[in-house]
Amino acid sequence: MTDRLAAQIAFLTEADKLKSVYRATKVLDGHRHEDSGSHSWHIALYAMILAEHAKTPVNIDRVIKMLLIHDLVEIDVGDSPIHGDHDIAAMEAAEAKAADRIFGLLPDDQRDAFRALWDEFEAAESDDAVFAKSIDRVQPVIGNLETNGGTWPEYNVTAQQLEDRVGWKVAKGAPAIWEHLRQRIADWFARST
Amino acid sequence: MTDRLAAQIAFLTEADKLKSVYRATKVLDGHRHEDSGSHSWHIALYAMILAEHAKTPVNIDRVIKMLLIHDLVEIDVGDSPIHGDHDIAAMEAAEAKAADRIFGLLPDDQRDAFRALWDEFEAAESDDAVFAKSIDRVQPVIGNLETNGGTWPEYNVTAQQLEDRVGWKVAKGAPAIWEHLRQRIADWFARST
Ligand SMILES: [Ca+2]
Repeated sequence: MTDRLAAQIAFLTEADKLKSVYRATKVLDGHRHEDSGSHSWHIALYAMILAEHAKTPVNIDRVIKMLLIHDLVEIDVGDSPIHGDHDIAAMEAAEAKAADRIFGLLPDDQRDAFRALWDEFEAAESDDAVFAKSIDRVQPVIGNLETNGGTWPEYNVTAQQLEDRVGWKVAKGAPAIWEHLRQRIADWFARST
Repeated sequence: MTDRLAAQIAFLTEADKLKSVYRATKVLDGHRHEDSGSHSWHIALYAMILAEHAKTPVNIDRVIKMLLIHDLVEIDVGDSPIHGDHDIAAMEAAEAKAADRIFGLLPDDQRDAFRALWDEFEAAESDDAVFAKSIDRVQPVIGNLETNGGTWPEYNVTAQQLEDRVGWKVAKGAPAIWEHLRQRIADWFARST
């Protein structure tokens, strides 16, 4: 029992480092960049509140757990802004290695269970994972809309790029949400250009 | 649908402010104070990993949801360090008012469901709430143990005070965890005094 608890506490202590991984986006009041710990909390809350809009009914409890762990690999590899350029294969290999290390801190049964959940999220094929990915993608869009475009001007993002890079991913898991946002995005770009 | 979605997005946007509420504790690497958004993520993760140690079997999915929303009232009232002095009745009244406002942003059915879950957490009587409270209490203790006493010296905390203020609350919901920590706490105070 004590060994098991010590392993669990070691994992939870390591997880604390996600609070020191910063994202390209800022918290909405703009006073600092958002950390991936806060981000993980916020999108778990997003999923909880928006579950009814999933294209296919999901097991929201699994989705929430998936989102609570989905960014832990960033402790080793950092956050990759979706509008940047990356070597996808190299990034995926680095993330898998990080998952080995971080989930490997847990007792074997939990290591396997949560690694499987993370793999499912990454594969983005199950209904739960597709919805989880939609939610992960939609939160920065809403954040940008709420802060006069947020990081869009900085990255020279266009409405068409949002459609191509984010829209279809959100629509795949939560079409009603993207439908709602598409109109708000069109309005924002019409006003700002 | 659009009105409902707009209300849900307004709630989620308001929730972002929890990332700007800071706690007395620091993130473990010490570079900043912990915000209540990150904290909420971390203890939801704690509950998920430590559920097996609950004194009475809990519905971990309910516990996680409870922990995701438990600190939202701090957007209006801030965080109250457990080692400070407070007018408890005034604080509870202010928190209830904050809960009215914040959960009130949601569509009525969700407002009622999540307000009930928050009330249950605050009442600390159901098995799920007792375990959730235990987890909320134990995370700063572990954080302090992992950072050479953390905020204990600053607040002149003694091992007996930890037992009186935190220990019985943790033990009520998760006795095995407190048993494990009590020994580590005794060792730390023996070394540091
Ligand atoms: Ca993410």
